[in-house]
Amino acid sequence: MAFRPAYPPQGGFRPVMLAIAGDSAAGKTTLTRGLVEALGRERVVSLCVDDYHRYDRTERAEKPFTALHPDCNYVEIMEQHLHLLAMGQTVLKPVYNHGNGMLERPVLIEPRELCIAEGLLPLYTKAARSCFDATVYLDPPEGVRRVWKIKRDTGKRGYAEEQVLAELDRREPESAEFIRPQRAHADIVVRFDPIEGRGESAQHLPSATILLRPTAPHADVVAIITDDVKKAVHLKLIRDEDGKPVDAIHVHGYAPPELTRPIEEAIWADLDVDEPLPSNLGMLDGEHSPSLALTQLLLLHHVLRNRGSARPMPEENK
Amino acid sequence: MAFRPAYPPQGGFRPVMLAIAGDSAAGKTTLTRGLVEALGRERVVSLCVDDYHRYDRTERAEKPFTALHPDCNYVEIMEQHLHLLAMGQTVLKPVYNHGNGMLERPVLIEPRELCIAEGLLPLYTKAARSCFDATVYLDPPEGVRRVWKIKRDTGKRGYAEEQVLAELDRREPESAEFIRPQRAHADIVVRFDPIEGRGESAQHLPSATILLRPTAPHADVVAIITDDVKKAVHLKLIRDEDGKPVDAIHVHGYAPPELTRPIEEAIWADLDVDEPLPSNLGMLDGEHSPSLALTQLLLLHHVLRNRGSARPMPEENK
Repeated sequence: MAFRPAYPPQGGFRPVMLAIAGDSAAGKTTLTRGLVEALGRERVVSLCVDDYHRYDRTERAEKPFTALHPDCNYVEIMEQHLHLLAMGQTVLKPVYNHGNGMLERPVLIEPRELCIAEGLLPLYTKAARSCFDATVYLDPPEGVRRVWKIKRDTGKRGYAEEQVLAELDRREPESAEFIRPQRAHADIVVRFDPIEGRGESAQHLPSATILLRPTAPHADVVAIITDDVKKAVHLKLIRDEDGKPVDAIHVHGYAPPELTRPIEEAIWADLDVDEPLPSNLGMLDGEHSPSLALTQLLLLHHVLRNRGSARPMPEENK
Repeated sequence: MAFRPAYPPQGGFRPVMLAIAGDSAAGKTTLTRGLVEALGRERVVSLCVDDYHRYDRTERAEKPFTALHPDCNYVEIMEQHLHLLAMGQTVLKPVYNHGNGMLERPVLIEPRELCIAEGLLPLYTKAARSCFDATVYLDPPEGVRRVWKIKRDTGKRGYAEEQVLAELDRREPESAEFIRPQRAHADIVVRFDPIEGRGESAQHLPSATILLRPTAPHADVVAIITDDVKKAVHLKLIRDEDGKPVDAIHVHGYAPPELTRPIEEAIWADLDVDEPLPSNLGMLDGEHSPSLALTQLLLLHHVLRNRGSARPMPEENK
């Protein structure tokens, strides 16, 4: 009999676990793709937790809830797989095909340096949240999200605009009950928010407000985002919706690279890692978005800072 | 947010885990079905570990190995799921469709009182074996197994006899390398073996030799299978193929119920459980097979005896 390693099969390697939660068309895939491209495909595995759908599209049509509802998803299996991935194990992840609405053959997900779990409900339960080193909630204003969702679903997914609007209305109560409460559990909340008074629209590179909650150790933004750079980025200590203190970073959507690049370099230097600042941060439809770049960078800070600590202690320290 | 239980989700319940290993058409499904019917569907969950196939039929056609090869299966995922089931957790099991050779949407497997894992490789690795309370290897003589496989695959699966014979030849080296060595790891080895000299054939209710290895606590067969019943069943202390001591129970395929029923009742009484001896043991194509009935009963003995011990200790004993 061939040698097989004992269970658990991996030799102690543990990935950094990152959650990106948000409603449909909030920008999760765009943010995930940027992180994958910045670090390199060989270092990142990403999974969409919407694949844990319990029903296919036909079955769902007969249910009294939408795909946003926890009862429409194998939440316990999602938790189980996130725990296994966090412990460095491989899982066989279910697959939901958005194209035809069918549940299909599962795929193997093997841990890499960074594991990104994005989707509708990654922060819904305490057990799921406990798997992550850093958590993000994408929080565009509803008006902006509707524009993004119509654009995507009429384009890539072949729906008519009226269908998308009806679906948005149908989902609204479950968005309010299950999706938006996850915002309270994120270490980082990102609001891409075009400023209409300045002629920005949902179609442009948006400005963004990035909230950094003191629930996780972030980059030292107080030292880096000073008055010298306030034309591009500024930092304010504010109270969040719930009254709790947060650092709020506002990034102007139109800030020129010569103003934002030094900030990116300072955050990178703060990490003190032995690799250069990725050159492709913030790319969005072929243009450079300073707000997307800074969001990605603040997340990469978590990834690279956690890299060492996410692994088990060396033998001699136990 | 609705209340969700913390991980692990179940409240300490642990199933009795039973493995039934053996080559293709060795009788695994028949034995499993009998146990499910004896205990009742609501008390048993069975899974076929051949569902952990890594490739569908088309992909497999291009590989240098058959479905018997561990590299053709997600062995680590099988181990992981068996461990989770043994700990009382639910898993999302992959599904291989024998009809069309496709991998399909996975199904939820929730633990019940008894969990039976049957298939080609459930005892292949130490990690998998460690999940079970009792392990069985079905070991019909090759000639008998060939007759059974041709009958099934030309009947239910639509192959021509020449195709089945060619496949048996193609699989033989991997049977020898990966399947048959699992026999050494079974607590119980069953050889259904028609005795040709007595006019039995592979088509008849077969006689059987049941080997009980001292690796697990079996029913007290020494006290029960005495000289009084030797016309139906007899017990011998022998050395197995590898020289190790085993109890060998021979059951005559043609033994009448009035001789075998008292043995079944004595084994059942030895268990001292508060439920009657199942009335439907040993049913095979509408006839009663004494050898199948005794095999099932010796397995049920493990299940019912382990029922209490498989659960975690009560709080006061910790």
